[in-house]
Amino acid sequence: MKQSTLITKTRKDVSAQEQSINAQLLERAGFISKLMAGVFTYLPLGYRVLTKIEDIVRESMDELGAQEMLMPSLQPKEPWSITGRWDTVDILYKVKAGDKDLCLGPTHEEVITPLVVHYISSYKDLPKSVYQIQTKFRNEARPKSGLLRGREFRMKDLYSFHATQEDLDAYYVLVKDTYIRIFERCGLGDITYFTYAAGGTFSKYSHEFQTLSAHGEDTIFVCKPCKIAINHEIIKELSACPECKSTHLEEHKSIEVGNIFKLSNKFSKPFKLAYRDKEDKEHEVMMGCYGIGTSRLIGALVEALHDDKGMIWPDAVAPYQIHLLSFAKNAETQEKAHALYKHLQGNGYEVLYDDRDVRPGQKFADADLIGLPVRIVISDKTVEQDVVEFKQRTEKDPVLYTRQELEIALAKTLNIVKR
Amino acid sequence: MKQSTLITKTRKDVSAQEQSINAQLLERAGFISKLMAGVFTYLPLGYRVLTKIEDIVRESMDELGAQEMLMPSLQPKEPWSITGRWDTVDILYKVKAGDKDLCLGPTHEEVITPLVVHYISSYKDLPKSVYQIQTKFRNEARPKSGLLRGREFRMKDLYSFHATQEDLDAYYVLVKDTYIRIFERCGLGDITYFTYAAGGTFSKYSHEFQTLSAHGEDTIFVCKPCKIAINHEIIKELSACPECKSTHLEEHKSIEVGNIFKLSNKFSKPFKLAYRDKEDKEHEVMMGCYGIGTSRLIGALVEALHDDKGMIWPDAVAPYQIHLLSFAKNAETQEKAHALYKHLQGNGYEVLYDDRDVRPGQKFADADLIGLPVRIVISDKTVEQDVVEFKQRTEKDPVLYTRQELEIALAKTLNIVKR
Repeated sequence: MKQSTLITKTRKDVSAQEQSINAQLLERAGFISKLMAGVFTYLPLGYRVLTKIEDIVRESMDELGAQEMLMPSLQPKEPWSITGRWDTVDILYKVKAGDKDLCLGPTHEEVITPLVVHYISSYKDLPKSVYQIQTKFRNEARPKSGLLRGREFRMKDLYSFHATQEDLDAYYVLVKDTYIRIFERCGLGDITYFTYAAGGTFSKYSHEFQTLSAHGEDTIFVCKPCKIAINHEIIKELSACPECKSTHLEEHKSIEVGNIFKLSNKFSKPFKLAYRDKEDKEHEVMMGCYGIGTSRLIGALVEALHDDKGMIWPDAVAPYQIHLLSFAKNAETQEKAHALYKHLQGNGYEVLYDDRDVRPGQKFADADLIGLPVRIVISDKTVEQDVVEFKQRTEKDPVLYTRQELEIALAKTLNIVKR
Repeated sequence: MKQSTLITKTRKDVSAQEQSINAQLLERAGFISKLMAGVFTYLPLGYRVLTKIEDIVRESMDELGAQEMLMPSLQPKEPWSITGRWDTVDILYKVKAGDKDLCLGPTHEEVITPLVVHYISSYKDLPKSVYQIQTKFRNEARPKSGLLRGREFRMKDLYSFHATQEDLDAYYVLVKDTYIRIFERCGLGDITYFTYAAGGTFSKYSHEFQTLSAHGEDTIFVCKPCKIAINHEIIKELSACPECKSTHLEEHKSIEVGNIFKLSNKFSKPFKLAYRDKEDKEHEVMMGCYGIGTSRLIGALVEALHDDKGMIWPDAVAPYQIHLLSFAKNAETQEKAHALYKHLQGNGYEVLYDDRDVRPGQKFADADLIGLPVRIVISDKTVEQDVVEFKQRTEKDPVLYTRQELEIALAKTLNIVKR
């Protein structure tokens, strides 16, 4: 992508009222634009990050054998009355349409459970799992923290259906392992903890995935050797690591990026989702639900990976992999810069090519703010020496590389993008 | 995909209240599920069709140089007050959130125009175009016609920004040509007409793309040789083909699947979207907007392409390309069926493999209802003869093919799916 054709520019006029680091950096860099509190537009750069995260999540769900679908945001009152949640879920956006009461879905148990009644009636129909990656709504009183707590946000929700508690338990472990790999692939593996949290009516604990962050809204107690944490809400109840029983736990602020729940018969009971076993005896279907906030993950990534100059994107979720800065003053350099852009693209790398007619200082500042993994500079001087300047966003100083050295460095640093 | 693992089954219990052919067939075949009037879940088979259509649209937009983004559904009242549309757009879902008035976006001029004010200020910033593929909301009084008129539906909307009317005019022609190719690729090219329609304040005519359909809500007058139509709304004003001037026009029912508008300064004026030219003189930005109803296209495809047995999907948008029916009674046939399933997938085809333990009659009926382009039957008898039974959904009778003949027939009939 030639930066001169990009619809966005970096901005200096972003309101200082926006407290959170993620919203500030993302808006300054032209990744998002705030429409109102808790509601954001994903601009082309931000939308690319969102797409990459959602593609990683999608691939992982497909590997789990889950089937993708898309449920509506508009939901009628009736199923929410059946579960009793119409009056108890306080973040529900309610919409009057004529004389009909509707809400905007913050979650989809009230849709998926009565839906699968049409398709699940025998033990032969189980197990099954379905998921969607979709826009959710929560009428938050005080949305803040940028993409960490939105009124409209993106989420992956997976629902699983089982004949027995044992089958649910086994699938739950598979999902847990899949989640760990997803956060690893997104570049947050090292600082994301499998966390014990309050369980509700149907199981002693539920589990969250919490990413360490100084500005997180949650507090967790971490057992570093076991890579396990305990949500502060239950630390009185569960005061030692469930794995090694150690009580040497570190307190950290964190961001909840995923959660997994055993629903058991919580929804199958009110919606009469049942199956007949081999002996024709009827049983309630056991359910699990599993969420990942895909837009919140963008916020968590920025909170975790930035410095005072800007964002630092991991390769797998960066909007582009290489920021190619051209400081060409003569035609030969310009031609070489353009040829290098085409060459890198041809080799399967995603390149943002800063071909704009602006000062080098601004190009450097923008590159740091946007934070692509690799920066390459080409100038009249580097062309003269037959080298390019190479720097990873995580490194302090650039190095001069011949073309051959560049190829080797890129192959070491980045994954080829297969499209 | 093994059909035994698919979450959905074909249904016989679909309400006869559902008048439209598209909703009836799609719901019976397990492509969609009606949550309430005008609001549908896209089940795995239907979601695959939606994804294929949206991928075709996305590729085409990218070819136009448009940049993808994602705008919110929740929109504040203020910009709608500025354009005066808060009180005049009668299909607006209005939501009260605390003391704030919001609406659910049926379109996004009120979001995109003030947004790009941050990024467009000079002639150097033009032209630009952005698009999104996103969920839209319309509070229709009487939603009917299944996916043809929904309260919540999927749409691609493209917005373009230009320095001059001439530049807008030239881009408008490019988009028109791109739209024609999109409908061709989706399999509706032959029966989709570029249609003159009422223009509103800013240009004499706007243009629609109308697909012929006996149950369409629109009426158009068609000039077959020129592949041009005139919407009945303006037939008194424009009574001859604008191309050949013929008045021999055929009246047809039709479905609007796309529309393109020259907005000129309609939105740039109220939102003060302006740019400075080379002489530093200020001008209003010229805008165009261009829509395609991606979920409505599914409905139009079914209305246009079905028979009394079910749907007839074109290759490019079919949920799978091949329906492989196994009637194996012995282990050898079962093994051969499974091997053929793997072989076809390995060759790049998308296969729905009916490995269920149900009667052949039901498998045939389901295959006709679901309507994949190619049906292959393997049975103990065909294995004995070392052949398979091959039938295109559009053909009446199957033929027996050797494996080599099968490969040739598939290569002729289907495109390999590159993933």
